[in-house]
Amino acid sequence: MDQSEPRQTKSSDRRDLETMRHSAAHVMVAAVQRLFPGTKLGVGPTVEHGFYYDMEVPRPLTSDDLPVIEAEMHKILAERPEFEREEMPIETAIDYFRAHGQDYKVELLSDLKERGTTRVTSREDMDVDPGNRTSATMYRTGEFVDLCRGPHVPSAGRIGPFKLLSVSGAYWRGDEHRPMLQRIYGTAWFTREQLDHYLWQLDEAERRDHRRIGRDLGLFMFDEEVGPGLPLWLPNGTVLIEELERLAKETEERAGYVRVRTPHVAKESMYLRSGHLPYYAESMFPPMELEGVRYYLKPMNCPHHHKIYAAQQRSYRDIPLRLAEYGTCYRYEKSGELFGLMRVRSLQMNDAHIYCTLDQIEDEFLAVCRMYLGYFELFGIDQYLMRFSTHDPNQLGGKYVDQPELWKKTEEIVRRALDHGRINYTETAGEAAFYGPKIDVQVWSAIGREFTLATNQVDFAVPERFGLTYVNARGEHETPICIHRAPLGTHERMIGFLIEHYAGAFPLWLAPVQAVVLPIADRHAPYAEEVGGRLRARGFRAHVDTRRENLNHKIRDAQLQKIPYMLVVGDRELEAGTAAVRLRSGENIGTISVDDLLARLDAERGQRQHAALDTALGHSDNA
Amino acid sequence: MDQSEPRQTKSSDRRDLETMRHSAAHVMVAAVQRLFPGTKLGVGPTVEHGFYYDMEVPRPLTSDDLPVIEAEMHKILAERPEFEREEMPIETAIDYFRAHGQDYKVELLSDLKERGTTRVTSREDMDVDPGNRTSATMYRTGEFVDLCRGPHVPSAGRIGPFKLLSVSGAYWRGDEHRPMLQRIYGTAWFTREQLDHYLWQLDEAERRDHRRIGRDLGLFMFDEEVGPGLPLWLPNGTVLIEELERLAKETEERAGYVRVRTPHVAKESMYLRSGHLPYYAESMFPPMELEGVRYYLKPMNCPHHHKIYAAQQRSYRDIPLRLAEYGTCYRYEKSGELFGLMRVRSLQMNDAHIYCTLDQIEDEFLAVCRMYLGYFELFGIDQYLMRFSTHDPNQLGGKYVDQPELWKKTEEIVRRALDHGRINYTETAGEAAFYGPKIDVQVWSAIGREFTLATNQVDFAVPERFGLTYVNARGEHETPICIHRAPLGTHERMIGFLIEHYAGAFPLWLAPVQAVVLPIADRHAPYAEEVGGRLRARGFRAHVDTRRENLNHKIRDAQLQKIPYMLVVGDRELEAGTAAVRLRSGENIGTISVDDLLARLDAERGQRQHAALDTALGHSDNA
Repeated sequence: MDQSEPRQTKSSDRRDLETMRHSAAHVMVAAVQRLFPGTKLGVGPTVEHGFYYDMEVPRPLTSDDLPVIEAEMHKILAERPEFEREEMPIETAIDYFRAHGQDYKVELLSDLKERGTTRVTSREDMDVDPGNRTSATMYRTGEFVDLCRGPHVPSAGRIGPFKLLSVSGAYWRGDEHRPMLQRIYGTAWFTREQLDHYLWQLDEAERRDHRRIGRDLGLFMFDEEVGPGLPLWLPNGTVLIEELERLAKETEERAGYVRVRTPHVAKESMYLRSGHLPYYAESMFPPMELEGVRYYLKPMNCPHHHKIYAAQQRSYRDIPLRLAEYGTCYRYEKSGELFGLMRVRSLQMNDAHIYCTLDQIEDEFLAVCRMYLGYFELFGIDQYLMRFSTHDPNQLGGKYVDQPELWKKTEEIVRRALDHGRINYTETAGEAAFYGPKIDVQVWSAIGREFTLATNQVDFAVPERFGLTYVNARGEHETPICIHRAPLGTHERMIGFLIEHYAGAFPLWLAPVQAVVLPIADRHAPYAEEVGGRLRARGFRAHVDTRRENLNHKIRDAQLQKIPYMLVVGDRELEAGTAAVRLRSGENIGTISVDDLLARLDAERGQRQHAALDTALGHSDNA
Repeated sequence: MDQSEPRQTKSSDRRDLETMRHSAAHVMVAAVQRLFPGTKLGVGPTVEHGFYYDMEVPRPLTSDDLPVIEAEMHKILAERPEFEREEMPIETAIDYFRAHGQDYKVELLSDLKERGTTRVTSREDMDVDPGNRTSATMYRTGEFVDLCRGPHVPSAGRIGPFKLLSVSGAYWRGDEHRPMLQRIYGTAWFTREQLDHYLWQLDEAERRDHRRIGRDLGLFMFDEEVGPGLPLWLPNGTVLIEELERLAKETEERAGYVRVRTPHVAKESMYLRSGHLPYYAESMFPPMELEGVRYYLKPMNCPHHHKIYAAQQRSYRDIPLRLAEYGTCYRYEKSGELFGLMRVRSLQMNDAHIYCTLDQIEDEFLAVCRMYLGYFELFGIDQYLMRFSTHDPNQLGGKYVDQPELWKKTEEIVRRALDHGRINYTETAGEAAFYGPKIDVQVWSAIGREFTLATNQVDFAVPERFGLTYVNARGEHETPICIHRAPLGTHERMIGFLIEHYAGAFPLWLAPVQAVVLPIADRHAPYAEEVGGRLRARGFRAHVDTRRENLNHKIRDAQLQKIPYMLVVGDRELEAGTAAVRLRSGENIGTISVDDLLARLDAERGQRQHAALDTALGHSDNA
């Protein structure tokens, strides 16, 4: 199955896909109207991977209705109707929809007539052209007519394989004081293969849902009294955190980073200096007032690190200085926008700031990119994209700090680094941060779902605000450039991603419990403890399951817990100093001596120190 | 030198010591009056290890005056005056002091007459008996007369060896709107040996001051814009933190603890449930209001851990459950009370909560005590005291939760654990926490200074407030007992203590930089890098000093940085694959092969896994 298909679609293909999907939505509504006469139409835009339509149907729909509607859609498609575009004066359109009892369409057209738009909020897309218009565009498909800006496929015959996915309630115009309509989601693709892949991906994503697996494997929890968006990490999840931290620390240590720890709060004045206040204020937790001074929870680690840089006069011999911290930041996200580990209010970032000269950026930036590649290889992420965002010269002094030369230079340097590193990247103008060019890193999980994990930023403005300098070889003070980077993103999102990526079956080095010893009968318990003890002495996380359950029950439990190794021990194993080894996959790899088992586990755990990671870091081993 | 002398003093001896010191203060003031006629007296109580007196002297004193005053004191002592007690009507006393121009004494006597006390605040001790009095007590020593409640030694001949220590300014009655007086501090002891020991200790404490060493070794810093009491850990200090954390994690893992991570904030409602609000509110940071809900920075980790305990139904098979976290808590301390790492606002605690049955407390408590002993042995702390605080039966239902049986039982259990463990402890009634008996752990540093590092508490009240239960073997729900413990205290105070204890010369496993390689000339730099690389590959923190300074300069710098090993390499060493090894003590241990050096370093670093720690934890290796 080609998991990369969706995103390798060219943008022209993508537009065609959207047009086709929206046409499929029209056919869906036509089918609903045939099955449920009197259905009133709301709106129906396309969304990523599909479409929906909101409707007021005479009776509540259930998922059982979806196959019936699909069958009706196939009937309509068999009739191969055309999509006919028609433009008419708004008044005529209003009369038409009023005559057909389509109150919601009448409301939209009246808005269009009076306000020139159908939007009620800036984020609402009502699928009707904005602008001060006197005419409306209508699309007719057989007997079905809809107010719609189009475009559509010329004929329903061009609609590819589709599937209706779900039905749910949705307030008209997202307003809880307006009527609740029914929303049907569907998807449509050019080929059956694409549709099948997408449906498989949906199934897999549900099976791999990090919230469900997080609960089943005891990784994390939320608590109403602690607060939304504030995960509490349970023992198994804490193992994941600590293993990731160990990985990052070892990798960064070898790459010449030093570590720091900074408080979670700071005075208002520091955030005024950094510019977080007032520009970032609405993403910050509100202040605490202590002895007449306002303190804020830190939304980012950079200002604290700048303070550490500034704590002593630095010389050109001291830089590049790479300050790393797995710092916990707090950001305000609206309750409604929180989502599992993917959108939270407390974020523990794999953060570091690299202070260097302009001449050093290329090497440093490339080293950071290579660190990414090393991690990708370790995690088996074979599809990634770095989106390189540059400035817009027309917005210098406005959206962008007014340093045209520095922009040009740093962007060239970053581009060169990406090229030299043979990094897979795209470039977009006008998306840079205020203070320098940046890279957003996207990865695709094992089932082809896209995640934005991290950003890299070059910052040539903020070091000056903090008065950071170094004395160059000629004894002059210069301002360093700062690179912000976080290859492993935050624990929250990274672990959310890894849960889906591995479907909870983490590689040995990362697995919360690496092996469980299963004595067949009570009399084998001492030997089981001995085997478990040997594993623990070798640094493995090994449990002994001495519950009075039968063996199959224990094996099933261990499989559900995705424990990599199950070591069954009975009379024969006790006698011979061996264990019968099963993998969580169900594979039985036979009876082996405990010595051989330890050697095997050592080798497998050692995969973390994969040659790829060594290579990626090779450049800085002599730092 | 017997460093334990001061605290082994019996309490009757301690009272005698205070009496003698206060008498010494009278002699000191008599000397000042002789030298500086017209001196007006404020007050002069005793303090820990000494005494002071506040005076208005006709000209400002400097430390150069102290030997002169000491000499005058010796003259007075040579006269062997008696201390004569005299009681007179307050009016007579007022007249006497007014006649002698002693305005401050007149003020005190007038207060005594009008208000029955000389105190202006509850914490002020003006050295005059409280109570509604009509007469005042005066003490006369030769020509010197003071208003004083006594007691005093009968004769100045009984005053032991003394030393004046410092002179500084102090507002009359601590009020910045009243005159600034001059305060002379002094100390006095029974024997010359005691005095010498104390003066040595003072000198050493200054030399070992954690704030100075913290700055010199680049361990931590404070920043005005971050805020007072909020240390930022520099790279070398972060090594200390991470090594201590690693020690705690390994020790706790072997002792059957599991680790969790919890947010630094929680809703008000949780702290109302825990009772921190309102009872502990004034030690907490003020709230942040988000979406109409108040959030607080956590002052302790326990409520978050209780939430994790409560996340699933526990059974008797699950407990003892030992939840550990190096959690950072935030507490409000007044700016004026902050002191280096010793009193801070952010505290990263070596925290854990043990949930167990009443039957399990003894073993668990003893295991915790043994963990302390293991740490003490590792750190070479040979003097410690556990202060066991029990409840006061008369205050049940008031200061103490009204569960007389549980108090009796748990106190007995703890006492038994302490006895069985041959723990050095004292017992004090009426000092327990609201919810159970506790132990405060005091240790003495290498120079005999006392530090309170940690507390252990038994808690049989709060688990019920959080509705914590386990299902016992009979299927009934029971409430567990909780033990709060933090053997390594907080990083802040522990590292402050260790800095003084080791005077910054940390043992190899803890030293921020473990070895520095010093090439004699530039041409030896590649070999120096090779040696450094081999050390780093073995997991040692090794630097290569390639600065163009001469060797002696580099050696001196390394000694100032307290780097345990200095490896000098020149032609001979390059040739032979060796290094000339110097220790930070200055000791030269000769030229040895790099292989032998690595073996030596391995062995020395391995001292952390000392048999003592293994023994201390032996009981729980099969947990």
